[in-house]
This record gives sequence, C-alpha cells and structure tokens, in this order.
Amino acid sequence: MIRKSGLSQIGERTIDPPISWLMKLALERPKLISLAAGFTDNASLPVEESAQILTDLFGSPERARAALQYGSTAGDEDLRRLTLARVAGQDGLAAKAYDPNNLLITHGSQQFLYLVTECLCDTDDIVLVEDPTYFVYLSILQSHGIAACGVQLLKDGIDLENLEAVLERLKKEGALPRVKLLYLVSYFQNPSGITTSLEKKCAALKILRRYEKDAGHPIFLLEDAAYRELRFTGEDISSSLSVDSGHSRAIYSGTYSKPFATGVRVGFGFLPEMLLKPVLRLKGNHDFGTSHLLQQVLNAALLSGKYESHLPVLRERYQHKASVMADALRKYFPKSVQWDLPSGGLYFWARSPKNIATGPKSRLFNSALQNDVLYVPGELCYAADETRPVPRNEMRLSFGSASENNIVAGIERLGTVLRDVV
Amino acid sequence: MIRKSGLSQIGERTIDPPISWLMKLALERPKLISLAAGFTDNASLPVEESAQILTDLFGSPERARAALQYGSTAGDEDLRRLTLARVAGQDGLAAKAYDPNNLLITHGSQQFLYLVTECLCDTDDIVLVEDPTYFVYLSILQSHGIAACGVQLLKDGIDLENLEAVLERLKKEGALPRVKLLYLVSYFQNPSGITTSLEKKCAALKILRRYEKDAGHPIFLLEDAAYRELRFTGEDISSSLSVDSGHSRAIYSGTYSKPFATGVRVGFGFLPEMLLKPVLRLKGNHDFGTSHLLQQVLNAALLSGKYESHLPVLRERYQHKASVMADALRKYFPKSVQWDLPSGGLYFWARSPKNIATGPKSRLFNSALQNDVLYVPGELCYAADETRPVPRNEMRLSFGSASENNIVAGIERLGTVLRDVV
Repeated sequence: MIRKSGLSQIGERTIDPPISWLMKLALERPKLISLAAGFTDNASLPVEESAQILTDLFGSPERARAALQYGSTAGDEDLRRLTLARVAGQDGLAAKAYDPNNLLITHGSQQFLYLVTECLCDTDDIVLVEDPTYFVYLSILQSHGIAACGVQLLKDGIDLENLEAVLERLKKEGALPRVKLLYLVSYFQNPSGITTSLEKKCAALKILRRYEKDAGHPIFLLEDAAYRELRFTGEDISSSLSVDSGHSRAIYSGTYSKPFATGVRVGFGFLPEMLLKPVLRLKGNHDFGTSHLLQQVLNAALLSGKYESHLPVLRERYQHKASVMADALRKYFPKSVQWDLPSGGLYFWARSPKNIATGPKSRLFNSALQNDVLYVPGELCYAADETRPVPRNEMRLSFGSASENNIVAGIERLGTVLRDVV
Repeated sequence: MIRKSGLSQIGERTIDPPISWLMKLALERPKLISLAAGFTDNASLPVEESAQILTDLFGSPERARAALQYGSTAGDEDLRRLTLARVAGQDGLAAKAYDPNNLLITHGSQQFLYLVTECLCDTDDIVLVEDPTYFVYLSILQSHGIAACGVQLLKDGIDLENLEAVLERLKKEGALPRVKLLYLVSYFQNPSGITTSLEKKCAALKILRRYEKDAGHPIFLLEDAAYRELRFTGEDISSSLSVDSGHSRAIYSGTYSKPFATGVRVGFGFLPEMLLKPVLRLKGNHDFGTSHLLQQVLNAALLSGKYESHLPVLRERYQHKASVMADALRKYFPKSVQWDLPSGGLYFWARSPKNIATGPKSRLFNSALQNDVLYVPGELCYAADETRPVPRNEMRLSFGSASENNIVAGIERLGTVLRDVV
C-alpha cells in the first residue's frame, strides 16, 4: 500500500502517548499541580554523590579518557558484573548465580523493553499484559501493531486462573502462535502499586510452558522490575530469574534511573541465551552501546558504596511522601473512594464509586483540570482488548515529583472536586 | 509464518554487523594493530574541558539537579537552539535560519539514523545509498529487510547521471513507490573520504522531486554530516538544509560524539515538519529522551566556548595523524596501490590493482591478519545490490584511534603483505 505521507507502517500508525497529552495540559496551566507525572523526587537526587564520583573519575586522566571513549555494545564489563551480583544478592543467591554475559546495559530500561519487543514481536503478534499495566509499554505495542491481551490482577499479582482462561481462549481461536510474551511489572506496579509474589512468577512460567507446544515457540516472561529498589516496607521478593531453571524463559528488566538519577539514563536487562545475540544486534544498530560516561558514573556509585548509601535516603523520602499523600487522602477524599497505602514505588491507585467516571472526557477529570490538579485516568493503563470491560473509575496519583505542600494541596483540590461530583 | 525461535522477522533476520566480526578478530590477537576501528583518538579527548564543565555544573545544586532529572523527549531547548544556530552559522546563515523545534537530540547520530529509517521504511522499501557507504547504516537496512540501491560516487560526491539512471530503472520496474530516501554521508565520507559539493546536494534534491509524482509520496534526502567538524583543510560546505526551500525534504543528521567525545553519545537531527511528530513519537517509545546529564555537558561546552576551542586541537591532531599515515603509505605501499590524502575525517580509502582482492576471504586480508594488521575490506561498504558489480580491491584504513607509532607500524606491515601479494 502506498501512503501519501511516505511514512512506514510504524511511522503512520504510532500515536501520541497519553503521557505527552497530559504533559501538554500541565504546561498550559502554570498553576496546575500535577499528580500525573512519573518524574522522580527532585530534592533527593544524588547531587553530592554524583559530584564526588565525577571529581574522582576526572582526577584520573586514564579513567576519564576511557569514560569519554566508546564502550562495547553490551555494556561495561564491570558494570554488568556488579549489576548482576546485586540482582543475585537481592534474590538470595551467590554473586555468580547469573552470568554477566547475558546482561545488556541500555539507555534506560525503556530502551531494553523496546529492544526485547522489537526482537520478539511482529505486527499482529500478541503480548499478555496486566490489567492495568504501564502505559508507555502499551505505546510500544501500539506503535508496532502488536495486540495486547489483558490479564486480571489480584492483590499479590496476576490472577493465574484468568491467565489460563485467556491462554485457553487464544488456543481455541488458534491464536497461540502469535503469543510471544507475558509482561509483568512485578514490584510496586506502575500504576496499581501491586507486587507479584514469587509463587505467582513461578506458576506463570509453568503455565506459559504448557502452551508452548501449541504456540510452536517459546513464550517468554518479561519481568519489569523498574520499582524494585523503591521499597519502603516489607521484604524484597526474588525475581523470576531465581525460579527459571536453565535461564531460558525469564527476561529481567531493571534500571538505575529511578533509584539513582533519571538524568543518568542507565538501565539493564538479563536475557535468556537464545535471545542474547539477536537483541545485542539490534542494540548495535540502535546506538552501538550505552554512553560510556554514564556507565562509569554508575560503576563508581556501586563500587564506592554511594549507590547503597543513597538508597535508604531515597526510600525514607518516598515513604514520607506516601504517608503525606495518605494523610491528605484520609482528610480530603470522600470515604466512597477506595485506595491502598503502597509499600513502595511512586503511586497510589484510587477507585471512585462505579458510577463516577474518571476518564479524559469525564466531568471529574475536566473539573479537576479547571481546579488546577491533574491525575492519570486509570483507563489509559488498560490494553485495547475488547474481550473484557475496562474499569472507568480509577486514578493514578503520583507522589514522585510533587513537593509535600503540593501533594496536600493537590489532594485537597481533587477531594473537593470528588465530593462535588460524588 | 511461525518461527521456532519465537523471534520477530527483525529479530530473525538481523545479522551480526561486520564491525563486530572485525572487533572479535582484533580481540583474539593482542598484538594486532587495528586500522579498522572507527574509534576516535584517545589522546585528544577533552578530559580537562569535561572536568571543568562538570565541576561548574555540580557547583550549582540547582543546575545539577536539573541535569540529574528527566528532560523532554525532543531534547534540551538550549542545546537545540545552540546546535541549530551553529549549523546555520556553518551554512553561512543567521542563527535563526533553522527552527530549533524541528531538531531532535538523540543518543548519538546512529540513533537518529535508526529512528528516521524506522519511521519511513517498511520491509521491501528501497533506500538509495552511495557506492561505497557507511556500513553500519547498511546494517540498519539489512535488519529491517529494506533494499539498498547503490549510486556511484565521484570525487565531488554522488554521480548525478547515475542517480537519474537508477531512478529511471526503478521507475521502469514500477518500484518508485518503494523508494523513500537517498542517504548521503556528505563530509569526508566514511569510508571513501569524499565530500559532496553543495551543487550536488541541490541537484540531488531536485532530481528526487521529479520522481515523487511516480513514487506517490515524498522522497527525502538524508544527509549524514557525522564528520563535518573533522575538517583539516579547505572550506566548509553548506548543508542540504540551506538549499531545501521550505525545509520539506532535507533531513540533516549531526553528532557531538566524534568532535567532542564518543563516550558522551549525543547526536542530533533536523527534520522536515511532516516528519517531526512521527519521529518524536518513536523516540519517546525508544527511551523518552536523551540523557539530560549528557545534554548539559554539551550545553556547557558550547556556551563556555570549550567546544569551539577544542575543535582546532582535534583537527590539527587528525591532520597530523593523516600526514603520518600518508608518509607511511608513500614509504611502504607499492606504487600500484592508489589512495588520496583526505582533507578531513578519519579514513584513507585505498585501491589495490584490480586483480588483488581485499575481501575477508582474500589472501591479502588473511595474510595481513597473520601479520597482525587489520583493515576494513572495502566490499563490506557496498550495498547488496545485484544490478551492479562491487569492486573487490578496496580497503578502508583508519588513523582515528591508532597511535602514530602504530599507524606507521601497521602500514609497514600491510605494505609488506601487499608487496608480497602484488
């Protein structure tokens, strides 16, 4: 088909992500308090740590020169080793449990998610996602014309019965050969705040295996652990890597952007052997490799202990901001709006009564905007999957970037609007 | 079609780039002198400049925090403005001649080339490239299943008659609707060292326009100016932007990686209005935006004048290394091997007598490897286009990263092998 624009199918198909539309709204109203942005907390950024790291790095001309030169496509060897030793430690395993050769360093974990999806999915393929899920991942799928199938989410992660039901339906439709991935945001999920139990990761891997014969190929579990480090209460939970025997089906995506600095833009991903070369080749074509300077900053942060010592500061900070938001919610929101206190991450997930719509065209959303407060309408976080209804009464409220005063003022404004509408 | 691997068409199709295969050879032979690598000169990296810039940046907690936070998808406004003012100045125009809103900052110009190609080309589309051309761009095309058609190159750039002949042939074959781009590496081309005259850029734009009616859509000129700043003799030549009325067909790709620091990985690209949003959306899905810290380093380098003052140092350095290689070539190469002294960039392009093959399986290449010297076989820089023969007797010799001693020793070794084979 000839398109007058001359664009490719991807170029023609890709729509603006909801995030850009929300950001535009925010820019148009200078007094607006955004509880929508996924930005991190400005005050707790590691300014002094980074300054010290860079002073040290540039104090050695040899190390500085290496940082200013190209690195390898897969990423700095030390950083890969330190990163995987850290993940293994979190998983309660010896530092060498995971092979650093299977790790790729990327410009943020978003790039890793993009590369994996590009490497596995053609147009019309299917990715299973949580209901709700990370909306920028839905943008990647939309761009490539990949169908997303929603799987229900319970308090401890994906609903395994529903996962099986969805796979059974796809099997009956003869659609299993198109199913490539199950995508889970497994820690303090964006947007719901839910954390997936290890039992569920393990069970999900087994369920996927059972459908591989009919699919005719592997079905991978893509675990997005972007918020793992931002835990303020409870115990850490091991990753899917720890229960994937032979490391053949679990893909693990992590990041230093959120726990260290979003401006440093370093993410990473662990790949099963069979995906390593194909993804690495794509990374080479995308940009040769991740900025060596940024990698050296992280390397030094990990080696010096500055990364470790910054984490508790960050966690306390977010825990405090979450409690500030919780107090405001208790004070200003009608009792009919439900929410849970998250134990990590950057978000509250709130449900208004079923008859109170929260969508972009709802009375609530527009009234909130008129009163200079912005949230992410929950329905933007659901895949366009017509086999099931989408709740229209949810909101994502972020305490990541707003100041404490703005959190309270924003929730007060939103509470007033809610009381008015309810 | 179900693939047992479960990979996408791109994942399955993408082959290792020649560069990784050459790098592997280099790693296996520790005494090897590589005249193949596209790395830049280590000794002239701006260590002191970068140290000063980072000290200043982190001296202001406010600026430091901004650098450590997310930026926008298109890139820092100041950097876009400074960058385009610089390009306009090089083109002999007022600073505001080009609109910074049309500029995108990327993780190296490679990422920009990837985004543009992804946005314009589907599988089986056609991109016109120079014979020879930048081989990593050929890897992007190969990965996407895009056909590359070679157009002959003369001393002052693309052969316009041949460009017309190729387009006429494609028109007769009914293939014009698949033609999306003409890709030109216009300054001190990688690999040939050739610079395209402004007249040719202007004429190429006009020729492409004439075929748009039969194509049914725009045919863009993608000008890759990666080596523009690395000029050591002669006058600068204006870019295609300066002769593209209405800025509707010329896409300009530039980089700070090579003239400043490859480890800093900041590139940029100017887009016609109609491509701006589509490419920006893809960039958002790839990685949200380029590392804000890296952008602030470049920003400060430009504002402080450190970038400008570093350029002559770099140019003198490369000019000197080129003259060292030229002296060695005169001394050690047989007279029957032809080469030209480049006036910029990082490469010599050499032609052995027609009966002396230089390819990866040739006696020459393997004998060179046995003698611990590596070059890029010229045939790797030609598109897989069966409508024309590919010269098998060319070599790309880089003076970018090798030390002066290694340049001389490497050319001496290669000269010995050549004399032996010739």
